[in-house]
Amino acid sequence: MKVRVLSARTIAGLLDFGEAIDYVERGYVALFEGRVQTPPIQHLENPDVHGEIDVKSAVMRGSTPYVTVKAACGFYDNPARGLPTGSAMVLLLDGSTGFPLALMDGWLLTSWRTGAAAGVATNLLARADARILGLVGCGEIAAMAARAVARVRPLERVAVWAPPADLDLCRRFAATTGADLGIEVVIAASVADAVHQADVVVTATPSREALVMLDMVRPGTHITAIGADGPGKQELDARLTAGSRLFVDMVSQCRVAGELQHPLREGLMTEADVHAEIGAVLAGAATGRESADEITVFDSTGTAAQDIGLAALAFERALKMDAGSEVDLA
Amino acid sequence: MKVRVLSARTIAGLLDFGEAIDYVERGYVALFEGRVQTPPIQHLENPDVHGEIDVKSAVMRGSTPYVTVKAACGFYDNPARGLPTGSAMVLLLDGSTGFPLALMDGWLLTSWRTGAAAGVATNLLARADARILGLVGCGEIAAMAARAVARVRPLERVAVWAPPADLDLCRRFAATTGADLGIEVVIAASVADAVHQADVVVTATPSREALVMLDMVRPGTHITAIGADGPGKQELDARLTAGSRLFVDMVSQCRVAGELQHPLREGLMTEADVHAEIGAVLAGAATGRESADEITVFDSTGTAAQDIGLAALAFERALKMDAGSEVDLA
Repeated sequence: MKVRVLSARTIAGLLDFGEAIDYVERGYVALFEGRVQTPPIQHLENPDVHGEIDVKSAVMRGSTPYVTVKAACGFYDNPARGLPTGSAMVLLLDGSTGFPLALMDGWLLTSWRTGAAAGVATNLLARADARILGLVGCGEIAAMAARAVARVRPLERVAVWAPPADLDLCRRFAATTGADLGIEVVIAASVADAVHQADVVVTATPSREALVMLDMVRPGTHITAIGADGPGKQELDARLTAGSRLFVDMVSQCRVAGELQHPLREGLMTEADVHAEIGAVLAGAATGRESADEITVFDSTGTAAQDIGLAALAFERALKMDAGSEVDLA
Repeated sequence: MKVRVLSARTIAGLLDFGEAIDYVERGYVALFEGRVQTPPIQHLENPDVHGEIDVKSAVMRGSTPYVTVKAACGFYDNPARGLPTGSAMVLLLDGSTGFPLALMDGWLLTSWRTGAAAGVATNLLARADARILGLVGCGEIAAMAARAVARVRPLERVAVWAPPADLDLCRRFAATTGADLGIEVVIAASVADAVHQADVVVTATPSREALVMLDMVRPGTHITAIGADGPGKQELDARLTAGSRLFVDMVSQCRVAGELQHPLREGLMTEADVHAEIGAVLAGAATGRESADEITVFDSTGTAAQDIGLAALAFERALKMDAGSEVDLA
């Protein structure tokens, strides 16, 4: 019983956003087709050290079925000890035998699967002539999303906004992302500035109030909203969410944890007004953008289908390249 | 971020029943003291291949806190492909940082932690002069339990009973166990024969009806009942369970999944008649056996505290002996 061990460094060398987008798309389609099962998250705590662990498991059925078990940790006393707060591990099992296939660092996989969602949605829903990306947020997810979006549209410019307190971080982000993508990355003076000049917007902040207001957004813009992934979290004006053609990753999750929760609560729309789950569009069972002028919003709360997708990609690439180490568990 | 990988073979060479009993005792005490948290099991299925996966997680707080995430698989199409049905993996995390410590084969750990429970209970509750072990069942758990009991009482004889269909298996069991323990292992003609001659009884079958009846048991006997670990499962006569001094691993679990469910349902006792959780006895907060004549029963349904105990033992022993392989996940 051989298990492949993939470190963060190994995974970084294996992943590619073109493939990541492809695997996340497959995950969304499987989710739409009912081939993904995700039981409720197990939440564990060690209050002695302000630590918490979320265990997320999923099975994806299909021609190459997989099972993932992810343990995502946040230990808030770690920084005082010189250690990072967050860490994550993913155990990948063969979905046809139950046997283990791989143990992987899960931190990078999670960033990639989250960023890749913006690539999937932009590819599917943005206008073909989109060239300017507006970013609200300058963290790791924003960096991943910029790279994913750049894979699906020939970007000419990125305008990034972050709160004034993060200005130094934002400058480093602009320099790194500009160098990586080989395009101009400008720091926007305001959210409105970043959004108004953009054809494609990605929001990726921990905000709990609307940052992107309806009147900031030009007709024809596509927005991928990533930050809202829990009750109370919000980045988009509820009127914007309600007034756009709205796509979601999972209705059941978005109505309690995504942007969708706010217009529903305010009575601005009902669940029937959600245009489609993104997997339905990818599977050809629902339309995407219907005019060049409409605003499209993708409400991305994050799904186990993406986790399985990226874990499968890393594993399959590692097998092909014989990367990582292989250990025998028998 | 170094992770130790422990194969089944490595673990087999590391474990020792004396230590396993010690670590399971610590687990029971932690459970009693409220230092173990176990969220509900995640149950996943891949019906395409008759596969199911149970994900069990737990955190144990204390001076050396640990987190375990166990994926236990049963894939019922495996035998037709020449593969074993069951497999299990355990991921051990450092409960003070969330960082991964080890990936281990979980199958052997589970057998050991289950068998060790019989050692803990026998040590605590059997008469000091107990010399004869009666076993009902001849599977892997019975084998482990026999070894654990042999560590806490100087056994002179084991009498094992199994259903007639398992006679060949039972003969092999008797030969192997006899050789391992260096004592006589006889095959009993009936459950009554195995139980009546015994000072200590362990039941470890998948039975769904009472096998050990009240009138088979001599005064002063201690019984550890392991098989009943789910609704409807039963090995002991409900009158026996109700009429003994009853110890349990977890009341909340035993009342729905253990022997306790049956006398409760039949109105033969109430939960208040349970003498104590075994952790309370180990912690000195409750009495154990109170007379040489009484019958004691330990209703063992299996707890995450035992899983953490055995995983911690395997990891700590591996560190000390530098056993297994170490891989870097950074």
